[in-house]
Amino acid sequence: MRLSRLLAPTLKEAPREAEIPSHRLLVRGGFIRKVAAGIYDYLPLALRSIRKIENIVREELDAAGAQEILMPIVQPKEYWEDSGRWGKYGPELLRLKDRKGSEFCLGPTHEEMVTDIVRRDIRSYRELPVNLYQIQVKFRDEIRPRAGLMRGREFIMKDAYSFDVDADGATASYQSMYDAYCRIFQRCGLDFRPVEADTGAIGGSLSHEFQVLADTGEDSIVACDTCDYAANVEQAEVRAEAGQDPGPPVGEVTLVSTPNQKTIAEVSEFLELPATSFIKSLVYVTEAGEAALVLVRGDRGVNEVKLRRALGTTDAHLAGDEDVGKLAKAPVGFVGPVHFRGEMQVLADPEVMAIRGGVTGANKKHAHFTGVNPGLDFEPTRVVDLRAAGEGDGCARCTGVFRTFRGIEVGHVFFLGTLYSEAMGATFLGEDGKEHPAVMGCYGIGITRILAAAIEQRHDEAGIQWPMSIAPYEVTVLGLGKKGGGDEAVEAERIYEALRERGVDCLLDDRPARPGFKFKDAELMGFPLRVAIGGRGLAEGVAEVKVRTEAEAPDKIPLDQVVDHVVGLVEAARAALRP
Amino acid sequence: MRLSRLLAPTLKEAPREAEIPSHRLLVRGGFIRKVAAGIYDYLPLALRSIRKIENIVREELDAAGAQEILMPIVQPKEYWEDSGRWGKYGPELLRLKDRKGSEFCLGPTHEEMVTDIVRRDIRSYRELPVNLYQIQVKFRDEIRPRAGLMRGREFIMKDAYSFDVDADGATASYQSMYDAYCRIFQRCGLDFRPVEADTGAIGGSLSHEFQVLADTGEDSIVACDTCDYAANVEQAEVRAEAGQDPGPPVGEVTLVSTPNQKTIAEVSEFLELPATSFIKSLVYVTEAGEAALVLVRGDRGVNEVKLRRALGTTDAHLAGDEDVGKLAKAPVGFVGPVHFRGEMQVLADPEVMAIRGGVTGANKKHAHFTGVNPGLDFEPTRVVDLRAAGEGDGCARCTGVFRTFRGIEVGHVFFLGTLYSEAMGATFLGEDGKEHPAVMGCYGIGITRILAAAIEQRHDEAGIQWPMSIAPYEVTVLGLGKKGGGDEAVEAERIYEALRERGVDCLLDDRPARPGFKFKDAELMGFPLRVAIGGRGLAEGVAEVKVRTEAEAPDKIPLDQVVDHVVGLVEAARAALRP
Repeated sequence: MRLSRLLAPTLKEAPREAEIPSHRLLVRGGFIRKVAAGIYDYLPLALRSIRKIENIVREELDAAGAQEILMPIVQPKEYWEDSGRWGKYGPELLRLKDRKGSEFCLGPTHEEMVTDIVRRDIRSYRELPVNLYQIQVKFRDEIRPRAGLMRGREFIMKDAYSFDVDADGATASYQSMYDAYCRIFQRCGLDFRPVEADTGAIGGSLSHEFQVLADTGEDSIVACDTCDYAANVEQAEVRAEAGQDPGPPVGEVTLVSTPNQKTIAEVSEFLELPATSFIKSLVYVTEAGEAALVLVRGDRGVNEVKLRRALGTTDAHLAGDEDVGKLAKAPVGFVGPVHFRGEMQVLADPEVMAIRGGVTGANKKHAHFTGVNPGLDFEPTRVVDLRAAGEGDGCARCTGVFRTFRGIEVGHVFFLGTLYSEAMGATFLGEDGKEHPAVMGCYGIGITRILAAAIEQRHDEAGIQWPMSIAPYEVTVLGLGKKGGGDEAVEAERIYEALRERGVDCLLDDRPARPGFKFKDAELMGFPLRVAIGGRGLAEGVAEVKVRTEAEAPDKIPLDQVVDHVVGLVEAARAALRP
Repeated sequence: MRLSRLLAPTLKEAPREAEIPSHRLLVRGGFIRKVAAGIYDYLPLALRSIRKIENIVREELDAAGAQEILMPIVQPKEYWEDSGRWGKYGPELLRLKDRKGSEFCLGPTHEEMVTDIVRRDIRSYRELPVNLYQIQVKFRDEIRPRAGLMRGREFIMKDAYSFDVDADGATASYQSMYDAYCRIFQRCGLDFRPVEADTGAIGGSLSHEFQVLADTGEDSIVACDTCDYAANVEQAEVRAEAGQDPGPPVGEVTLVSTPNQKTIAEVSEFLELPATSFIKSLVYVTEAGEAALVLVRGDRGVNEVKLRRALGTTDAHLAGDEDVGKLAKAPVGFVGPVHFRGEMQVLADPEVMAIRGGVTGANKKHAHFTGVNPGLDFEPTRVVDLRAAGEGDGCARCTGVFRTFRGIEVGHVFFLGTLYSEAMGATFLGEDGKEHPAVMGCYGIGITRILAAAIEQRHDEAGIQWPMSIAPYEVTVLGLGKKGGGDEAVEAERIYEALRERGVDCLLDDRPARPGFKFKDAELMGFPLRVAIGGRGLAEGVAEVKVRTEAEAPDKIPLDQVVDHVVGLVEAARAALRP
C-alpha cells in the first residue's frame, strides 16, 4: 500500500481525554476515531492489525477443534428469561424494543444464544464434545467508558463455548483452550501471564485470566518468584504461616483518646505505633442482609473473594457509614472487636491473631484501645485467611515469595459447569440412556483490547512499537527525495515492490513530505522495520534500515543487499513468535 | 474437517414458514437456525460460505483501491440529525437509548458515519479520491422479515463509499466499482445482470442494481435481446414508436351504462372490447400535494419512476379512494379524460394517443364512454412516456426487443453526488483554493443474501448446488463401510488427506451412518463434488466421483487416479470462475 493513498490521518496532539499511551497513540497515529463515548471508527491501519489478530485466533482455535459460527447481536428477551439473566443483568445490558414492541438486548455475551443452539440441535453424547466460537462486535453499556479501546462500549470479542458430557471432558476442553490461548498471545508477541482468577457470582470452579503485563494495567496481580502460580490480588492464596507463635501478651487494654483521628494512618501517626500493630475492623453486609465484622492487620486489605467464600455468599460489600453505626453500635472509624456490641459474627485473619499489644477502635467516638492481645482480649467467631496478597507475601503453593505486577486482561477462560445448560434445558441423551445437562466452559478474548494492551506494553515517547505479527505493516519504506520524488522515490519503489514480491507486508511512504515528517509518522505508527532511502545514502549506495525497538543508529545496508537483509529480519521476527 | 465433528444438523422437514427453496434448504442443510423473525444463527457451513464470499469481495475491492475500515453498529442520533435523516427515516431505523438516555440507532447504512470521517480527516483535494468500505452486520427493522436470508433484519453487508473532487472523478469511481462488482459476482459463480435502477428519492443520477437471475426473485427486470441494456421494469425506457400514425378516428363518444363494472377486466368482458382499447385513468398525488391524471393503455402499468421524473417530484403515489372522488370530481372506477372536471394536469402515454374508438370512464357512476379518439375527444396537458416495460417491448437504446426476467438484487451501486457531504459539511480545499463538497458514491453488496440468491439460482429437489468458489467445502469424501468404518473408511481417509494436501477444501463424512443417509446429506448440503468409497467399488479398485450438477451416474475412477482426477475437476471449476 502507498501511504499517499491510505487513510491514516496522523495528529500532533491527542485529545485531552486520552490519559493512557494506547489511547493517545491510536488517535494520534490515525488508527481510530471516536464516534461517541466508548464507540470508535477503526481506520485502515487499526483494522489491518485487528484482522491479523483475528486470523491468529482463528487458526489456533480451529487447530484446537473449535468451530466458527456467528450468532446475532440483537437477542430476544425470551432467551435471557430462560437463563434467568434478563432481570439480573444490570444496566450494562442495553435493552431495546423493535417496531412491534418486542423486547431485545444487544449481546454483551452469548451464553444464551449458544446454549439455545445446543439444546435445539444436539441430541446424543455421540455429538459431544462441541466447541463453538465467534468473532463479533459486542456491546456493553459501560457506565464509564474510558481509555480508548481499553474499555469501550462497542468492541470486538472472540467468544467460545464448549459443551461436554461430563466434568472430566469439560476440564479437558478447558485445558485445550488454555493451551490455545497461550499460543495465541505468544503469537501476538505479548508478554503475558495466565493468572488464577475469581470465579465470581457465576459459581464455576476454575478460571484463568490472561494478563498482559503493563504498568498502566488496571488489574493487580501477584506471581510467585519460584513456582508457576500467579493470580489476581483479590484471588491469590497466601501461604499460611504455620505454627506462628504469637508470643506472650504485651501490655493491657487501655482506652486512649484519639480526637478526630479516624484512619489508621492518622492514629498510627498520632500514637506513634506502626500500622502492623493495628487491627483493622470492617463491617461487611452480604446480599442476604447479614453483617460480619472483618478483622485484618492494619497494613492489609481484605480479599473480598476469600471473604465471600468464607461467608458462603455471592456478594459481600462494605456497609455504608449509616449502617455501620446501626449494625456495629459504634461510630464509623472507631469500630473494634474489644467490647464489641454489634450482633454479628467476627472473622479474623490469622495475622491479626499474631498481634501483640495492638491498637483498635474502642466503639466510642474519639477513642481507641491500645495493648490489645487477640485471643485474650477478644475471641473471634472464626479465624480464616482473608487478606489480600501483596509484594513479598509467601506463595501458598510453594516456598516462594510473591512479586506484584500490573496487568491488562485480554483473555479469560472459565469452567462454567451446568448453570446455563440446566436453566435452559440443554441436555443430551447419555450412554446410560438418561438425559444429562451438558457441562460448559466459556472463553473470551478481547480482540480490540489486544491492540490497546500491545501498545501499553510496547511504546516509547515517539510512538507505538508493534510486534511483527500484529503490526498493520511489517515494513515501511521511505523515499526521502524532494517532494517525495527524485531518484530516492524510484529506489524506494523498487525496494517496496521487491519486498512485496518476497511476501513482506509492506507500506511505501510516497507522500510529498519532508523526511522529518515521514520519520515521525513511521515511529508514531510503529512499524517494526523502517527502510529509508535518502539522497546521501543513494550517493553512498546504501539504504538505512532501522528496527523500531532499537535505540542505535540505523544500519547502512548496500542497496543490492537491502531486500535480502530486510527479508531476513522479518523472517527472524516471525519465527521468534512461533510457539 | 470431519463431518462427525461438524455442527451441521440436517433436518428432514423444513419449517412450515419456509416458502422459498433457499430458506428451506439452508435450514434443512444445517446452515442456519432462526433466533427471531429475520434474525439467524449462522452455523459452521454457512459461515464458511460467508467467509469465502467476504474474501472475494475484499480481494476485488482492495484491488480496485478501496480501503477497509470498520464503523460502529450503534450510531448516535446527532450524526443522523446532521444529515437530516433522523426524522425522515421510517421505523426500519431501530432507535434506542443508552443508560444515560442518549439516543442512538442501529446502523442500517453508514452514510452519516463515513461522511463524518471525511469531514473530520480529509482536508485537501490531494487526499482525494478515497473509497472506504466495511463488511459488517447491519440491522433494518423490516416490517415483514421473510424468506430466510433473503430479507432478514440482522444481516451482513459490504458497504463502500467513494469521495471525489468532482463529478468526473466520482463517475470514474463509480465505474471502477461497477467493474469490481462484475468480477465479484462472476467469481461467486452467479448468473447475474447489472441493470439500470431507480435513483429514487436520494436524487442521484446514476444507479445500477446487480440482479441474480432466479424465478423466485422478487424484482422484475427487462433485458434487451440485442444490446446490453437491462433495467428494472419500473425504470426501463421503452422505445418511442416514432411516427406511429394513429389513423383516422373510429366511432364517436357514446355514454354506455356499465353497472358495477369498475375494473378494466370487468368492463372489457362486459363490453366485449380488448384491454388495449381502454384508456386507464389514474389519479396520482405528489408529495407537494398536487394531483395529476395519468393515462396509460388498459393493458399497461404505470412506471412510477418515469412519472416522478415527468412531474419533477421525488414522490408520487396513487390517491386514496376518498381523495379520487374529491380531486377528480368523479367516482372511483369511473374516472376518465373526456369531460374531466378535475383541476389537474393530464399526462398521457404515447400509446394512449394511438387508441382509436377507445373506452374510458365517464366521470359518473356506472358509466363509461366508448368511441373515444384521444387528441380529438380530449387533449392531454402533455404526452410523455409513462408506461412500465414488459415482454416484447422495444428497447429504447437499439432496435431490439425486451425479454423479462425475475431477479434477486445482491448489489447496488449509486452515484450519490453531494447530498450528504453538503448536509454534513464534508468539504475539501480544492486546487482553486476554495472549499468544495466531496462528490460521493455508495456501493452495497448483501453478503448473506448472496447465499440465498445462489441457492435460488442453483438447486434441485435434493438440495443445494453450490458454485465451487463459495461452497462450504469443495469436495466431500464418503466412506460407505459398515457403521462408517471398515476398509472403506481407511481408503476414504487416505483420499481425504491426499486432497487436503493438494489444496482442496475437503470434508470427510466419517459418520457411523448408512450410505443412503450420507448421499442424501451430501446432496442436500450441495458440495460441488462427491467422492464415494463403497465396498463394491473397493473390490473393483474404484471410487465413484459425482459432480453435483450433473444428472448422469457417477464416474468410476481407479483408486490410484482419483486424487488427480478430483484435483483436475476442482481446478477446472475454479478456473472457470476467474474473470
